[in-house]
Amino acid sequence: MKISSSPYSNRAVLLDDAERERRHDALRRLMADNKADAILISDNANLFYLTGRVFDGYVYLPVEGDAIYFVRRPVKLTGDNVVEIHKPEQIAEHVHLEFGTVVGLELDVTPYNTIARLVRVFPLSEVGNASQLMRRARSIKTPEEIELIRLSGEKHIAVYREIPAFYTPGMSDIELQIEIERASRLKGCLGQFRISGQSMELHMGNLLVGENADFPSPYDFAMGGAGINPSLPVGADGTIIHSGNTVMVDMNGNFNGYMTDMTRTYAVGRITDEALRAHRVSIDIHRRIAAEALPGVKCSDLYHIGAEMAEQAGLSPYFMGHRQHAGFIGHGIGIEVNEAPVIAPRSRDVIEPGMVIALEPKFVIPGTGAVGIENTYVARDSGLENLTPMEEDIIYLDN
Amino acid sequence: MKISSSPYSNRAVLLDDAERERRHDALRRLMADNKADAILISDNANLFYLTGRVFDGYVYLPVEGDAIYFVRRPVKLTGDNVVEIHKPEQIAEHVHLEFGTVVGLELDVTPYNTIARLVRVFPLSEVGNASQLMRRARSIKTPEEIELIRLSGEKHIAVYREIPAFYTPGMSDIELQIEIERASRLKGCLGQFRISGQSMELHMGNLLVGENADFPSPYDFAMGGAGINPSLPVGADGTIIHSGNTVMVDMNGNFNGYMTDMTRTYAVGRITDEALRAHRVSIDIHRRIAAEALPGVKCSDLYHIGAEMAEQAGLSPYFMGHRQHAGFIGHGIGIEVNEAPVIAPRSRDVIEPGMVIALEPKFVIPGTGAVGIENTYVARDSGLENLTPMEEDIIYLDN
Repeated sequence: MKISSSPYSNRAVLLDDAERERRHDALRRLMADNKADAILISDNANLFYLTGRVFDGYVYLPVEGDAIYFVRRPVKLTGDNVVEIHKPEQIAEHVHLEFGTVVGLELDVTPYNTIARLVRVFPLSEVGNASQLMRRARSIKTPEEIELIRLSGEKHIAVYREIPAFYTPGMSDIELQIEIERASRLKGCLGQFRISGQSMELHMGNLLVGENADFPSPYDFAMGGAGINPSLPVGADGTIIHSGNTVMVDMNGNFNGYMTDMTRTYAVGRITDEALRAHRVSIDIHRRIAAEALPGVKCSDLYHIGAEMAEQAGLSPYFMGHRQHAGFIGHGIGIEVNEAPVIAPRSRDVIEPGMVIALEPKFVIPGTGAVGIENTYVARDSGLENLTPMEEDIIYLDN
Repeated sequence: MKISSSPYSNRAVLLDDAERERRHDALRRLMADNKADAILISDNANLFYLTGRVFDGYVYLPVEGDAIYFVRRPVKLTGDNVVEIHKPEQIAEHVHLEFGTVVGLELDVTPYNTIARLVRVFPLSEVGNASQLMRRARSIKTPEEIELIRLSGEKHIAVYREIPAFYTPGMSDIELQIEIERASRLKGCLGQFRISGQSMELHMGNLLVGENADFPSPYDFAMGGAGINPSLPVGADGTIIHSGNTVMVDMNGNFNGYMTDMTRTYAVGRITDEALRAHRVSIDIHRRIAAEALPGVKCSDLYHIGAEMAEQAGLSPYFMGHRQHAGFIGHGIGIEVNEAPVIAPRSRDVIEPGMVIALEPKFVIPGTGAVGIENTYVARDSGLENLTPMEEDIIYLDN
């Protein structure tokens, strides 16, 4: 079985002309609104958005005119407007910005010393923050991007359907996770779990059993877990799956560079009525928010809908964690797992058609484990459309 | 089988007092030499070095006096000198630096906007680059660190010994890689492949078959590969393993937060005499450099030893790649895969006892694939000691 041949040649620009211009135009509009004359982009996720591939180099996009691709590696990359460089200072030989113009650099993600060097490439310009423009542009997905996310979702679901076949009594969380990792990879999962920012780390997702779901992690994910080593303190920790435990599976859905985020709760034996009830509340929150998330609705209002439903059910102490609580119940997703918008109490984001959002209202029930589900949705004029449609009830591994 | 229970409590500081002070003192000496009064550290790899665990927060280390640990997450972390904070500005309530003092921040890795915020925490101080101090301190491993690397090596070797059992005729590179990933994970591999800098990405290592070894990648690794998707263009690409191909296995050796880097060449059928000869030259380069790498020797000289041996063998066009050549033949390794020193033509690094170095003189032979080996060594007074001792000849998968 050949999983995938290399589907691309060694060219710089893979997106077809129309899709590329759609994305570049979205940026150009934001640049015009924010008085930026050009942006210079080198973050891998942003390069992938603007060109359809990752390379070592820069995309220079002016508010008017075509992008220029400055490429350090790979060697001999060909394509329109591709310029081979060895160091960023060579960009100045091809691009000249007048006194008082504004060039956007990725100030939120690029290291300080790298920015200090890039600033000198544009000695007459002021510097603005391109990270926020890219974040905003990428939050509204094109139809092609939504289709890639839907395709990732189909494979993601196929993997989750296989999970009961992997379970054997006496198994540990990490052993089950390893079988899911293998099944995902065999279906084409790239393994890589792209997260913006250097402080977030995770290997192929999170599988949490019993009390480990309540272990506080340093990372800003919805759930924690102790992990198997203090160098990566998150996720499965070697806990044996016992009767009465839930197994929350929140594993990697990156099959094409665009990710789905999906959680399903599995269980062994009989779990408590309270845990079953909390799982039901999670599903109810999904239904309610999916209906209410119309264009123009504030993401903070969506958060409060979820938090209030948890409170009315008497489950606030367990909502989004017990010993440590996550500060959000949903997040944008696409090339990275932490895109805009954020569904959080003080979010200033507003729902717009084309946003893709992972919604994950979850509970940690002491003695049982984590319950609840996560789906990835695309915002439409009529509410949220589910890109990860799969049975949502608790799935028993020992049936 | 329980792979690992969580071996640590939810405490901030895991290193025993002596080991912690050994590492902190190494930094304090460098701070004194470089006129830094304090450093503030938040990069995960550096936090792990200074404390033995990752958390969301900062280590403040003064040139005289004890470290203070400012922790945002996880909640309720306890330990000596641990201060809970919600935002970095709170650090100023606990630390005061006088006018004209110098505080080191991680300017090579921390994003520009984060540094701009941290600078305001120390309004009277000048800012220096702590990244270079950390890089220098971490390049000389303590005996405890060397022991962890040796232990990773033992597991790494055990995984590589299993590889022939995974091979079946007609298999693709990625299918073989997936079985190696699973075997590694079952032996406790954390999966995570920690690399400094945001532009380098790889999922659990690189397995290259035949011509794919010659595919130029955007990443600054020794070898390339097309990968299975343009969002992660490196490594296995779905190539079927045919008779006469080599299979270069350069997979993840992170079993405890410290990594080994090890490559072995496997093959199917009969490979050409030239490829066999090049493999032998790689081993000879290892022997020669291991003997010559005495304390005080320049890393640039070690590079030239390797390059000259390749040239004398008439193999320069294939050395470190064919269509694209890597610019180094070795690199420091430990918590991250790209530590100091670098064995490259213009390296200014000098060998010192306690440095841990992955040496990887490799060749790409058109029609066959990549050959050569990589070992992880520790520098001793008498030369390099191999931390990945395993048979070095080509291992045939179909025997």
